[in-house]
Amino acid sequence: MALGAPTGANAQPQPFSAQATDPTLMGWMQGFPPPADMLVTQPDSNYFSFPKLRWSVCHLREFLPTEEISRGIGAPVPLNYPSPAQFADLRHEIDAVTFMPQNSDEEMTWEESLYANYTDGILIQHKGKVVYERYFGCLEEDGKHAIMSMTKSFTGLLAEILVVEGALDDTARVADIIPEIGDSAFASATVRQVMDMTTGVKYSEDYSDPDADIWLYSAAASPLPKPEGYEGPDGYWEYLQQVEPEGKHGEEFHYKTINSDMLGWIISRVSGKSVTELTAERLWRRMGVEQDAYQTVDGKGVPFAGGGITAGLRDLGRLGQLMLNGGELNDERLFPADVVENIRAGGDRSKFGTGFPTFGPGSYTSQWWVFHNDHGAYAARGVHGQTIYVDPTAEMVLVRLASYPRAQNGFIDPTSLPAYQAVAEFLMKRE
Amino acid sequence: MALGAPTGANAQPQPFSAQATDPTLMGWMQGFPPPADMLVTQPDSNYFSFPKLRWSVCHLREFLPTEEISRGIGAPVPLNYPSPAQFADLRHEIDAVTFMPQNSDEEMTWEESLYANYTDGILIQHKGKVVYERYFGCLEEDGKHAIMSMTKSFTGLLAEILVVEGALDDTARVADIIPEIGDSAFASATVRQVMDMTTGVKYSEDYSDPDADIWLYSAAASPLPKPEGYEGPDGYWEYLQQVEPEGKHGEEFHYKTINSDMLGWIISRVSGKSVTELTAERLWRRMGVEQDAYQTVDGKGVPFAGGGITAGLRDLGRLGQLMLNGGELNDERLFPADVVENIRAGGDRSKFGTGFPTFGPGSYTSQWWVFHNDHGAYAARGVHGQTIYVDPTAEMVLVRLASYPRAQNGFIDPTSLPAYQAVAEFLMKRE
Repeated sequence: MALGAPTGANAQPQPFSAQATDPTLMGWMQGFPPPADMLVTQPDSNYFSFPKLRWSVCHLREFLPTEEISRGIGAPVPLNYPSPAQFADLRHEIDAVTFMPQNSDEEMTWEESLYANYTDGILIQHKGKVVYERYFGCLEEDGKHAIMSMTKSFTGLLAEILVVEGALDDTARVADIIPEIGDSAFASATVRQVMDMTTGVKYSEDYSDPDADIWLYSAAASPLPKPEGYEGPDGYWEYLQQVEPEGKHGEEFHYKTINSDMLGWIISRVSGKSVTELTAERLWRRMGVEQDAYQTVDGKGVPFAGGGITAGLRDLGRLGQLMLNGGELNDERLFPADVVENIRAGGDRSKFGTGFPTFGPGSYTSQWWVFHNDHGAYAARGVHGQTIYVDPTAEMVLVRLASYPRAQNGFIDPTSLPAYQAVAEFLMKRE
Repeated sequence: MALGAPTGANAQPQPFSAQATDPTLMGWMQGFPPPADMLVTQPDSNYFSFPKLRWSVCHLREFLPTEEISRGIGAPVPLNYPSPAQFADLRHEIDAVTFMPQNSDEEMTWEESLYANYTDGILIQHKGKVVYERYFGCLEEDGKHAIMSMTKSFTGLLAEILVVEGALDDTARVADIIPEIGDSAFASATVRQVMDMTTGVKYSEDYSDPDADIWLYSAAASPLPKPEGYEGPDGYWEYLQQVEPEGKHGEEFHYKTINSDMLGWIISRVSGKSVTELTAERLWRRMGVEQDAYQTVDGKGVPFAGGGITAGLRDLGRLGQLMLNGGELNDERLFPADVVENIRAGGDRSKFGTGFPTFGPGSYTSQWWVFHNDHGAYAARGVHGQTIYVDPTAEMVLVRLASYPRAQNGFIDPTSLPAYQAVAEFLMKRE
């Protein structure tokens, strides 16, 4: 059986199944002190490798410096729930929903998919009510989970808000906003190309290649003191200043994290605020969230706009609901409806390419993934299985946090995307 | 004029005065990116040296890994305030309160003392109502501030709760609870001696001595990877296992931080919970606080029980009120009244010595400072001017957070302790 292959909820746990790698069951960081082989530490071990990953996704701040994304100090606005009896009924009905995984001829139940995907937290809202909510692994209702590249969608949403409000010109070139970008390949790209990741910039994330750009990016980004003799860029922004061109701007979508950090720099320069401050001011402090979120930083205190956020499951549900509602939440308008309209409309589909076969033919705009399917769904997505999935037709918001053994969503989509569609159809029929 | 000497609120700001070193005015970490000489970073600079200190006390998590002390996800319980008009009146009356600093023949006003002490936040509650609240420097009402050694009083309070509840025997020897303490000098000390810092353990904090124990402690505690060839202890607890004796247990009070970390280990072993978890469970989640707090950790995830907490001003006010109320807050009993009784009663005064002339003849018990004065006051205290000061006679709780240039409270007490007494007397007379 392959690592991470689907495992039924009631099947015998397999060696590397979600059930067998539950971090509490495995004993990571338990005891005072924990046994040496149960330590998960930043200095000594690869804390983000599976199965340690299943513990670490809830504990990033214990390894790294972070900045707070403040909720403020007021009372949270509770989510809406059906009665406990209705909620229990819904749980059982949804658990039994079946779907056909991509490239499979074996039906799977919704509940089986949760284990197949190493789900840590799952929340479904329908017409503004929570209809399903479960926690697994390291996550609890008052805990937080790394959201990985869903961070990009926060950065992109902030940028889209600034564009619609007129504070950011998405036709401007990066060099006009940040002159010190110098002769970086980013200099001649437009803000929109950065937002939609159609820049022509050299950046490879092939982890098996020791010369891949990701390694220099990681070295630049590390908040630890640089090694003796290190002469490379220090921090995200110095890295961005020396990016080389590859291809032409505007021709094709290339999913490269450096665009998100470039965008973070742009919106900070334009707004005079860090992305953490801006997220707090425009979103977190106004959404009635229950928990502060946080974001990892480089050695100069710059938040990782491409992947650094950790947040609570329900608060991510609030963000999805805000998107579904076109910028309104709790009877307050947080930003113009055009912001969501622009994202929902999607980017240029002809530029999307064929690099994401499990996602299908879609587009990427303002750092959101748009499915262009019958339901008009769009999503924030992060490695190891993170998603905020908004289905406007079904009036459904779904958040899943996970710690799938492998990073790429190509492994996770086959048992996820058809499941979301099936649940959406179930909810539409049930009412 | 000496560094940090008293400076009147209305006097011309002196070069190193509180007014002149306001971190916003100085420009630390402003801009995207900040100018190179305005960076305050962990890898490159001494971020805890004055005047950078004035920025860093509000931003520790941006330098270091931390663990959350969760407030939970419910609504905070608001503090009680007088009407805005009454509050404004009180502000002006309290600002004008005068007192005579220790060893001085020049009267000072309360408001002048705030600047003299590089105050970042000050909150006074009287009979359960907030009568005075101001923010300076890096702190705002929804911000947080390092509380330094007031952390010890959190650790000591948890220990005292466990003792009163019968979960921890304070007559037990450390080795009976933590056998792997081995032949450390702590092995033969009682829990009570650790709680009251009357252990006979070798530990010097003389920062001018390159062989002082503090340097090895810092190296052990650092969450950064250990330097090549480092063979010393890794983490707080490994350090404690190799502490040598100095003097006899139980004979005299010696203020040594390692006792607090020893106590943190003891209560974690006994309760099966980290001090962050225990603080959350016994205090933070039940006090109606507004903000999560957090605590720095070593490279193995062990929270710094001797000094690692950062928290909000009002939430520290809630803790002071909980103490004043003998363990009750918001109509709920959080722990037995004996816990506060034991702390208020103080430790053995004959063992206090003469090492704290500005504090006067007092005692230290369960990691709280007891004044044994007419008002029966006691306090949590931390370097650079942090205090929670509880005056049972005046029914007053006072919290001050500060970033005084020098660490030792001996420099700060002369313009603080007489000011607290004067405000207490003012409040008693005013009613």
